[in-house]
Amino acid sequence: MAETLETMRARFGALTAKIRSYQEALGVLHWDLRTGAPPRAVSTRSETIGMLSAECLRLSVSEEMGELLAFFEQPDVWPLLHEVERASIRECRREYDRNRRIPPETYRAFVALTAEAESVWEEAKKASDFKVFLPYLRKIVNYLREFAEIWGYREHPYDALLQPYEPGMTVARLDRIFGALRPKLAELVRAVAASGKNPDPSALKGHFPVERQKELNRRLLCDLGYDFEAGRLDESAHPFAIGLGPGDVRITTRYSEDDLTVGLFGTIHECGHALYEQYLPAGLYGTPLWDGASMGVHESQSRLWENMIGRSRAFWDRYLPVLREYFPEPFGRISTETFYRAVNAARPSLIRTEADELTYNLHIIVRYEIEKSLFDGRISADDLPTVWNDLYADLLGVRPGNDAEGVLQDVHWAGGSFGYFPSYALGNVYAAQLLEAMRKTVDVDGCVADGRFEAIRGWLHERVWRYGKQFDPEDLIEKATGSPANPDALLAYLQNKYGELYGL
Amino acid sequence: MAETLETMRARFGALTAKIRSYQEALGVLHWDLRTGAPPRAVSTRSETIGMLSAECLRLSVSEEMGELLAFFEQPDVWPLLHEVERASIRECRREYDRNRRIPPETYRAFVALTAEAESVWEEAKKASDFKVFLPYLRKIVNYLREFAEIWGYREHPYDALLQPYEPGMTVARLDRIFGALRPKLAELVRAVAASGKNPDPSALKGHFPVERQKELNRRLLCDLGYDFEAGRLDESAHPFAIGLGPGDVRITTRYSEDDLTVGLFGTIHECGHALYEQYLPAGLYGTPLWDGASMGVHESQSRLWENMIGRSRAFWDRYLPVLREYFPEPFGRISTETFYRAVNAARPSLIRTEADELTYNLHIIVRYEIEKSLFDGRISADDLPTVWNDLYADLLGVRPGNDAEGVLQDVHWAGGSFGYFPSYALGNVYAAQLLEAMRKTVDVDGCVADGRFEAIRGWLHERVWRYGKQFDPEDLIEKATGSPANPDALLAYLQNKYGELYGL
Repeated sequence: MAETLETMRARFGALTAKIRSYQEALGVLHWDLRTGAPPRAVSTRSETIGMLSAECLRLSVSEEMGELLAFFEQPDVWPLLHEVERASIRECRREYDRNRRIPPETYRAFVALTAEAESVWEEAKKASDFKVFLPYLRKIVNYLREFAEIWGYREHPYDALLQPYEPGMTVARLDRIFGALRPKLAELVRAVAASGKNPDPSALKGHFPVERQKELNRRLLCDLGYDFEAGRLDESAHPFAIGLGPGDVRITTRYSEDDLTVGLFGTIHECGHALYEQYLPAGLYGTPLWDGASMGVHESQSRLWENMIGRSRAFWDRYLPVLREYFPEPFGRISTETFYRAVNAARPSLIRTEADELTYNLHIIVRYEIEKSLFDGRISADDLPTVWNDLYADLLGVRPGNDAEGVLQDVHWAGGSFGYFPSYALGNVYAAQLLEAMRKTVDVDGCVADGRFEAIRGWLHERVWRYGKQFDPEDLIEKATGSPANPDALLAYLQNKYGELYGL
Repeated sequence: MAETLETMRARFGALTAKIRSYQEALGVLHWDLRTGAPPRAVSTRSETIGMLSAECLRLSVSEEMGELLAFFEQPDVWPLLHEVERASIRECRREYDRNRRIPPETYRAFVALTAEAESVWEEAKKASDFKVFLPYLRKIVNYLREFAEIWGYREHPYDALLQPYEPGMTVARLDRIFGALRPKLAELVRAVAASGKNPDPSALKGHFPVERQKELNRRLLCDLGYDFEAGRLDESAHPFAIGLGPGDVRITTRYSEDDLTVGLFGTIHECGHALYEQYLPAGLYGTPLWDGASMGVHESQSRLWENMIGRSRAFWDRYLPVLREYFPEPFGRISTETFYRAVNAARPSLIRTEADELTYNLHIIVRYEIEKSLFDGRISADDLPTVWNDLYADLLGVRPGNDAEGVLQDVHWAGGSFGYFPSYALGNVYAAQLLEAMRKTVDVDGCVADGRFEAIRGWLHERVWRYGKQFDPEDLIEKATGSPANPDALLAYLQNKYGELYGL
């Protein structure tokens, strides 16, 4: 047995390493496409990406994978495995089942549909006409309903769609979490709007040459602990962080010469993602555990660094003088308090990606309610514009004037990514829980004010980063904070911060 | 039969397209490693490159490839194929035979040896101590002697090593070509040295900020016909061009702020390679024919553009005024004639990569003589420093003072690339033949002086670029110029150019 076990371990390790190598190559290809590949590269590159993705998928559902998983899962073998091995096997089993149950023909048709739907969505958004996109959306929802049945769920079909993004999460859990957030956040947003206090947006206006911004961002990234020996900073239309390997976690940002905060907070946000990946244990590389625990946990890191640290008073006590070195104009004549208030302006708006820290979660709750209702049949794709607009009016007090600034604003649905949105708000929930727990042993504001970010990194590494994808997100958060996903910390954080900012 | 033929064609097309997709992905990974991947990326990226290369190799020697080739090569099938299909099959057959005959274990050992040898070579070069590298070189030569026997040859073992770089080329042919060049070039080099005329090197001295050089190089590339919609210009320690696909052919260069010509001629050189690839028929993509005809033909394009066009009087009549726009200092006070003479200074030197157009070929002949003699057993690896130094003294009249500036200067042998060097000089031979043939119908100097490069591109496209790898290099050159590889045109070109420059 011992000998067989060693052989099977070696085969499993080789197989997962090969899958990871394909993912690494695909990662480089995606990064390249988004950071400066020539426009005409796209057509052959897409074919290459398709081929490599298919090979990678083939391995994850191969006979060999099935045989290895069945071997390890035997009652007399399982107890012999280490905890980390079991987590790897669990992840591979999930992928195997998820991908193998869908007939390949069906999956290919779905992928082709979403590829086409993304172009149609672009046109529809340009024309601000939901009807153009509707036939595609109907088909995508039908496919995903079918997939949900194939994948299986206990209570709600949407549960099946949540799993790839947030393993273990359910509608029941989300209803409890978002149900608690929704009224309190809506109330807080109304109070802020009613306060009549509007920070002066002109405080941040100026001219900020890109090259100088790059220098500033590099300086900040170094301070926060991002390792340029194992990463690089580039530009892309939509900023992202991508972990290609333990020695290669890249960040992109985008610059506006009129508005420093676009590039600055974009960079800090991606830095949060990147720190997580740079601190993943290199020993997990080549297994499915060299990854964040979930989309939500990943987002908790970016939000914690961007908003809870990067938009804190302590941070700007320290960094406004640095900003003044780089841009004496306009920052030489602005107080920390003015700056702090300006970067924390909260106001109900229509576009999720431009939303502030406070109102953002309501944008997500709108999408969650819609996705959930689409999959339990309470609404159909046809109802979306009306439902969307009513929810915005109800939760945020604003009503989209057209489809482009309403239901057509996000690409996710065109790409078939139903189940993804909740992770964004869960990220905020987790981040607030982590911050609250961290404060029990770390003087967070003091560390930020002194630039001792290593204490913050140390805490996050100890509780989150070093586990990779070993635990399901709520288990990880419970281990780190004493509680599974719980909206109280986020509510308290927002009420405290915005209450003080807006004199509520 | 017709139906089977169509099926087999489709299978063959799918297989070669898959191989090409792997090569495209590998190309992006290599480009990325050389243009700015983080230092710590190297270890996992190397594993990924190893995995993808192995998959690609596996396909090229697969049972399926064997079956397809055997089918197409049947006497009743072959006549039904188009000329282009036959050329594809010929290329796949060559790869199949070459790679399948080496036992996989032996090949892996050889690859591991060369990987190690490259690091050892670096140390040896740093220490300027050939003895450190010698044990590795001995082993590499032994492997390649074994491979040559396995691959087979008609007359000379070295013939087998030439094939991957220059299909159809033999020692017999090279002896004739280089045998004619060697005495005449050595004589011309001696005459130039004896002329006592030395162009003033200070004419090119100045301070050239990199950003400004980049703008100049982009301008030049656009003028020469390089398509930035299907390419990009980056920096790397060793400049290169890489064709990733019909819509993506990239160039790198390197800049010296003291010496404009490093980046400038580096860029024009790589532009020659890149034009060839950008003009390959997109219809050949996914077949082995989407490639240059050989290393030598590829080099003929870079040399033609860099030296025969880029270092011509006509070119600088047109472009010195442009240089003056970008760098009034020092070029505002230099005449075209002074500039032309400065960029064509010829002087025997020790380092191949720094050699001028005239002496360069003698550096190659030194290496050719050594490689040939190593494989017919007239010399052994142990003899290299002595043989090297004597050949330099004999051909170039200079003798290396140590191993670093002598036998250890090139990485090729450490990487196992024996058979590669002759292509560099063949590139010059082919380029001169092409130029001579082109002059019969195109007013080359007039076109260059007027910036009508499209006439030159048109001629090259018609005779060379549009065929891709359809013909073996000497067949292609014969079709284009009326003669297979023939050193007369190069000799006449060099005697004419340097005779005039040095008043011989």
